[in-house]
Amino acid sequence: SATEAETVLSPDSHVVQETDYETLVLTKQNNMTTIRLNRPSRKNAINLQMYHDIIRALGEAKEDDSILVVFTGTGDYYSSGNDLENFNIQLDQMETVAQESSLLLKKFVATFIDFPKPLIGMINGPAVGISVTILGLFDLVYAVDSATFHTPFTKLGQSPEGCSSYTFPKIMGIPKGSELLLFNKKISAREAYNLNLVTEVFPTNTFEHEAWHRLQKYATLPNKALHLSRQLIRQLERETLHKTNEAECQLLKELWLSPDCASAIATFFQHKTRKM
Amino acid sequence: SATEAETVLSPDSHVVQETDYETLVLTKQNNMTTIRLNRPSRKNAINLQMYHDIIRALGEAKEDDSILVVFTGTGDYYSSGNDLENFNIQLDQMETVAQESSLLLKKFVATFIDFPKPLIGMINGPAVGISVTILGLFDLVYAVDSATFHTPFTKLGQSPEGCSSYTFPKIMGIPKGSELLLFNKKISAREAYNLNLVTEVFPTNTFEHEAWHRLQKYATLPNKALHLSRQLIRQLERETLHKTNEAECQLLKELWLSPDCASAIATFFQHKTRKM
Amino acid sequence: SATEAETVLSPDSHVVQETDYETLVLTKQNNMTTIRLNRPSRKNAINLQMYHDIIRALGEAKEDDSILVVFTGTGDYYSSGNDLENFNIQLDQMETVAQESSLLLKKFVATFIDFPKPLIGMINGPAVGISVTILGLFDLVYAVDSATFHTPFTKLGQSPEGCSSYTFPKIMGIPKGSELLLFNKKISAREAYNLNLVTEVFPTNTFEHEAWHRLQKYATLPNKALHLSRQLIRQLERETLHKTNEAECQLLKELWLSPDCASAIATFFQHKTRKM
Repeated sequence: SATEAETVLSPDSHVVQETDYETLVLTKQNNMTTIRLNRPSRKNAINLQMYHDIIRALGEAKEDDSILVVFTGTGDYYSSGNDLENFNIQLDQMETVAQESSLLLKKFVATFIDFPKPLIGMINGPAVGISVTILGLFDLVYAVDSATFHTPFTKLGQSPEGCSSYTFPKIMGIPKGSELLLFNKKISAREAYNLNLVTEVFPTNTFEHEAWHRLQKYATLPNKALHLSRQLIRQLERETLHKTNEAECQLLKELWLSPDCASAIATFFQHKTRKM
Repeated sequence: SATEAETVLSPDSHVVQETDYETLVLTKQNNMTTIRLNRPSRKNAINLQMYHDIIRALGEAKEDDSILVVFTGTGDYYSSGNDLENFNIQLDQMETVAQESSLLLKKFVATFIDFPKPLIGMINGPAVGISVTILGLFDLVYAVDSATFHTPFTKLGQSPEGCSSYTFPKIMGIPKGSELLLFNKKISAREAYNLNLVTEVFPTNTFEHEAWHRLQKYATLPNKALHLSRQLIRQLERETLHKTNEAECQLLKELWLSPDCASAIATFFQHKTRKM
Repeated sequence: SATEAETVLSPDSHVVQETDYETLVLTKQNNMTTIRLNRPSRKNAINLQMYHDIIRALGEAKEDDSILVVFTGTGDYYSSGNDLENFNIQLDQMETVAQESSLLLKKFVATFIDFPKPLIGMINGPAVGISVTILGLFDLVYAVDSATFHTPFTKLGQSPEGCSSYTFPKIMGIPKGSELLLFNKKISAREAYNLNLVTEVFPTNTFEHEAWHRLQKYATLPNKALHLSRQLIRQLERETLHKTNEAECQLLKELWLSPDCASAIATFFQHKTRKM
């Protein structure tokens, strides 16, 4: 995976690549810290380890001297979302797991809410679930034109998270936000752009070059003015976001323990077993 | 009118059609309760009876086992809005009528604010006034491409209601929302889509089939996850909506008793008389 | 400059043109008070005198019998924003100037927040900085298709004002608002329209005629209904807007005294000197 990262970096730049993340590749270069989701064989699904790794990586990026923090994914997918393997457990463990998962999710989302630097999404392919909803907390979202955005919560007996129950209606209004959050509609990068969830869409063959080039320019802006301006924009709704996160995680814990969700997840694993 | 309803229902489905609403046709089928505004000779204008009927129908839909609740209209119009015949009264009754109308409107809008299931608008033709503004409280709004949306309040000496003074600026921003709410601009279905007030626009010849087909699919989603997810999205602003409704009804009562409004309504009835 | 104003007024109308503003032309006609920024040799940059003049002109427009208040600019520019000459001072004065400028800006923006009549922007050319951000407090924004909108704060070591840290994310969402407010992106009139910051875009050759014609129609609406409807829309967020204004002016004062800003402004004056 180091090779792939290098292709987008100019040869003369100083690159520090962290190797102590099991599920991520973390790169520091030109005032940018890039966090690359790195489980391509699982379409970058977010398992428990990746939740912990991302929280730790954001803690590191917060303290380093980067000006921008960029998320992207290895391979064809950006991320297939929450790894349902997280729920592949014995029935009598379900209550404990639901409780722990709800706490972990709340901590994960809170880390994004409180993160002090501009967060950039470089969406290199399909994005699902939590990997989509959390984009409502990002500052810029650049997407390749083949990317798709899908939040299939209700059909799995679940509910929106990542503060999307607040950010999506704010960004696109309820009449369109509901089709995504309640009715499981999958949208293209272009549709996500029209809904103001994506800042700009790039053709596949120029995505890496043009979008990264723009970020490199942005990463030279005066640090203090940029970060304090961003904080100004964010501080107005931080309290609302934490309350939303709390309510979302509370509801998810309730639904994870409900028959609808258990049966949806069971169906998922049956399909999977049949495919094997 | 039963005939029209049947054309959109598959022949094998179990349909219960209520007949005890004077101004509505209420149909229950396939987990959907459909409330059809049914005064086609008056372009489905909302008279006092219809306000009361809709409040009662929503009370019934809240308790039944439907998953979605759908509004549509009989004939060419969706609804021509508040029936100005409501104000065709003796001058010395105006204060009483303004007081009662304000209370009825507040109750009507509050019923939508507190309604616990997804509300769907199937906008089959022109929509005016309160029938437009209340869409800001809906979850999905599907429109036929010949539909129009018009909120001519100020030119009748009146003011916005249905919580539109909050929802429209939220959905489309003030620079565009003002042209609708303050300056009486009539917009097409396509423009309403671009403003995020309408979820999707359908060609006339596929509207019934395609939009209803999609709703039938949505009506099979897990009930609990859907309704609790919706409640999550809504609970953040319920208090703001009730405060907005209160302020809107208060202002309308004041304006109904002002000379501007009286003269606008008088002009309306003069035009009408001349046409007869 | 009286000549230019007259070209857009019908010959038979009664025009009162105020002459006691140093930096503005104020015209009253047909229920509209028009405030024209009038420093064309400086691209209508807002110097200290113009801040004071606009505050005074809005005070006058508030009390007169106008129904609409319109802002536009003389010449090719709408406004190049805050005149950086305001900072062309001795270094030992900087703390005093920053303090005074912050207070003046707060008063200036508060005048817009509290202004009781519909505010219309007729954007006749490029708009920069505070002349763009303040549009988030306007009711209608009509733009000629050659207009551009640019808020280059961070690259000058500064931060957003005019309540844009609240209004822009509300109007267009953070993923697109950030590119303007944090990353200095310049956009066209058409892009500003797509972002809902601009109500409508007009071709250059019809702008004056069509946009003004529409305003003249709007200026005949019932006064009381229009102004109270507008107040209804605005009152919900007035408190938030004043808090935002306070926070923005506080941050700007801090940044004006920081090395990043001082060096950015010094660079500006060096470039200027070189050009002379």
